[in-house]
Amino acid sequence: RINGDRLWDSLMEMAKIGPGIAGGNNRQTLTDEDAEGRALFQKWCEAEGCTMGVDKAGNMFFRREGTDPDALPVYVGSHLDTQPTGGKYDGVLGVLGALEIVRTLNEAGVKTKHPIVVVNWTNEEGTRFAPAMMASGVFAGIHTLDWAYARTDREGKSFGDELKRVGWVGDEEVGARKMKAFFELHIEQGPILEAEGKDIGVVTHGQGLSWLQFTVTGKESHTGSTPMPMRVNAGLGMARITQLVDEIAWSHKPDAVGAIGHCEIYPNSRNIIPGRAVFTVDFRSPNKAIIEDMETRLKDGAQKICDEIGLTLEVEKVGGFDPVEFDQGCVTMIREAAERLGYSHRNLVSGAGHDACWINRVAPTAMVMCPCVDGLSHNEAEEISPEWARAGTDVLFQAVVEAAEI
Amino acid sequence: RINGDRLWDSLMEMAKIGPGIAGGNNRQTLTDEDAEGRALFQKWCEAEGCTMGVDKAGNMFFRREGTDPDALPVYVGSHLDTQPTGGKYDGVLGVLGALEIVRTLNEAGVKTKHPIVVVNWTNEEGTRFAPAMMASGVFAGIHTLDWAYARTDREGKSFGDELKRVGWVGDEEVGARKMKAFFELHIEQGPILEAEGKDIGVVTHGQGLSWLQFTVTGKESHTGSTPMPMRVNAGLGMARITQLVDEIAWSHKPDAVGAIGHCEIYPNSRNIIPGRAVFTVDFRSPNKAIIEDMETRLKDGAQKICDEIGLTLEVEKVGGFDPVEFDQGCVTMIREAAERLGYSHRNLVSGAGHDACWINRVAPTAMVMCPCVDGLSHNEAEEISPEWARAGTDVLFQAVVEAAEI
Ligand SMILES: NC(=O)NCCC(=O)O
Ligand SMILES: NC(=O)NCCC(=O)O
Repeated sequence: RINGDRLWDSLMEMAKIGPGIAGGNNRQTLTDEDAEGRALFQKWCEAEGCTMGVDKAGNMFFRREGTDPDALPVYVGSHLDTQPTGGKYDGVLGVLGALEIVRTLNEAGVKTKHPIVVVNWTNEEGTRFAPAMMASGVFAGIHTLDWAYARTDREGKSFGDELKRVGWVGDEEVGARKMKAFFELHIEQGPILEAEGKDIGVVTHGQGLSWLQFTVTGKESHTGSTPMPMRVNAGLGMARITQLVDEIAWSHKPDAVGAIGHCEIYPNSRNIIPGRAVFTVDFRSPNKAIIEDMETRLKDGAQKICDEIGLTLEVEKVGGFDPVEFDQGCVTMIREAAERLGYSHRNLVSGAGHDACWINRVAPTAMVMCPCVDGLSHNEAEEISPEWARAGTDVLFQAVVEAAEI
Repeated sequence: RINGDRLWDSLMEMAKIGPGIAGGNNRQTLTDEDAEGRALFQKWCEAEGCTMGVDKAGNMFFRREGTDPDALPVYVGSHLDTQPTGGKYDGVLGVLGALEIVRTLNEAGVKTKHPIVVVNWTNEEGTRFAPAMMASGVFAGIHTLDWAYARTDREGKSFGDELKRVGWVGDEEVGARKMKAFFELHIEQGPILEAEGKDIGVVTHGQGLSWLQFTVTGKESHTGSTPMPMRVNAGLGMARITQLVDEIAWSHKPDAVGAIGHCEIYPNSRNIIPGRAVFTVDFRSPNKAIIEDMETRLKDGAQKICDEIGLTLEVEKVGGFDPVEFDQGCVTMIREAAERLGYSHRNLVSGAGHDACWINRVAPTAMVMCPCVDGLSHNEAEEISPEWARAGTDVLFQAVVEAAEI
């Protein structure tokens, strides 16, 4: 079994980097804080005798050698980047849980046949540069590296330039590595495990996602002296589309969710009717046909709303992935590990996207989840108990060791 | 008559300071650009032999002496600050038109009995620091100077600190000056004069305004893994309130307008359900009872919307003034000047707020308006013709000279 105290200490140590304003973290990808987190993680991994590889997308790989160095390695990890108002566990638990496996094996002096590689994927959150799970997506051949490099944040800085600036452009081709399997531990970020009092979620599927970025353009004019019939109010169009997103998501209850998390109006002055609004719609469902239905109904409905007001509409897909079914063999290893250790468990469909969803395309993959308080995530108040962290990491440990073979 | 070419040249010269991105201006109050505009205006006024006074709110006064220096001066002017995406004439025409009066009198060697004082009021737009017409409001005793100093912009910088930074804290007490009369020339910012082919608007009234700033608070959480029934989406609340504002304004058509020009959601990340939204509602009407009705219905309706979603609601009044009736004597001087000069004219209710609306409380006041293309203002594409500018300034000139007595 892993050392729960050591794991917790490392989680708390990492959380000191990029502190938030309400007890959580702001360690967004490719910021100075991200670089500081990466350096600490590197120090810890190298102290365990692992050798580092870094690819051109900044993905970090730490290899613990196996007794058969030619055997395909077992990969395990998640991401260290956070939301602007993120929690201390989303992603971080999966990376430091993976490190804890190496520490435990080293302490016990146990060798595995297959090498074990601990991973930190770049820009999982997608909050600074859309889409989410970007560098694991490049690894899995979904995006080209050049396309990823060209993605910009709201200040117009590109992913490629920022990766260079923080000093994490590696020399490996992205996706060149072959894996025996990939495992990821993550907090649930939803309410099910806690509500049902289960220790472990065995993630069988992940729901799909669509991110549509809307730009609606009207006409800036004076809020006081422009008569109502002459207004072409882009903010009003955004408001009506926001309501429509909610209605469409509810219409598929409980098989879909939808919301708008990002919006900007221009020029954003109290006495100017907004001439432009830019916002991103987040639709999700475990059912691909539902996602497609929601996209179609939203585009049609938004066009109608814009026509009524006199707005022009542009829609760009800035992120998306199909629902995922994880590898049966790997899922079974997770379930059996939970059984063996005596943890209560249930199958789960992941509500969030994860690097594992992309890696599943190029290697047998599965995920373990642990509960989080009130199902709350993407909030600085995100919380888990040390016991939950330990149980999840124990299961991850057992599954990884089984795959890596002693 | 005034010199229309000289006036136009000065307008174009001033427009070079703080250029916008689409042919207009971004010379927001108390920025470096505002300071540069003030310095140019000072240079021009002093070249005409005027003496400068500056009060503690940064209001600038340039005095052309009268033959009776003890006679109460006639004040004339407007504002040099602009919206972030503002036009070249909103405010500026009224200031440089006032300067053109002094230039014309100097050129003709004509003395008036009463001194004439050309004014630039600080922070008329209210876009950087709410409310609008702030320093004329302090002058008229509506706000205290300390309250004005403490107003902050979105970066948290205060009006008082920024006024000091740009070097325009004067030594005069604000509002100490007594006026015989105040005249303001402004572009209409609405469509009526152009549509009816009139040269001149004789402004008899100004409509009232209410700025209510809403803060709705929900709960940040993950857009993917939070089930629909658990969401407390502040952005959805904002959207529904935006729609309600529109409905309430239309219900009083044609006697009211309403819109939301300013909004922010937090933390503004694509995959976080907004936990907080802050936005400002702009309601206007020439009828005070209608404004009160709109405020009440909006507060009640917004509370219902928030209750349904589970949001908490705070409302703060960040700006407002009652409908205004300008001084009959001054209004008559404007109308007779237009008649004398042979310009077509009609009475107008100003749709926008103006410094004249506050000064009307402490001195006999009236306004002249000229048309603007398509009624468009608070837009970089705001446009007027040199002929319109000249006609408006001619009328202003005649009214001011009549009040100042030759
Ligand atoms: N796990 C997680 O929060 N990932 C971010 C991508 C997403 O929005 O699902
Ligand atoms: N004239 C003008 O645009 N003033 C700004 C204050 C307002 O919003 O009416």
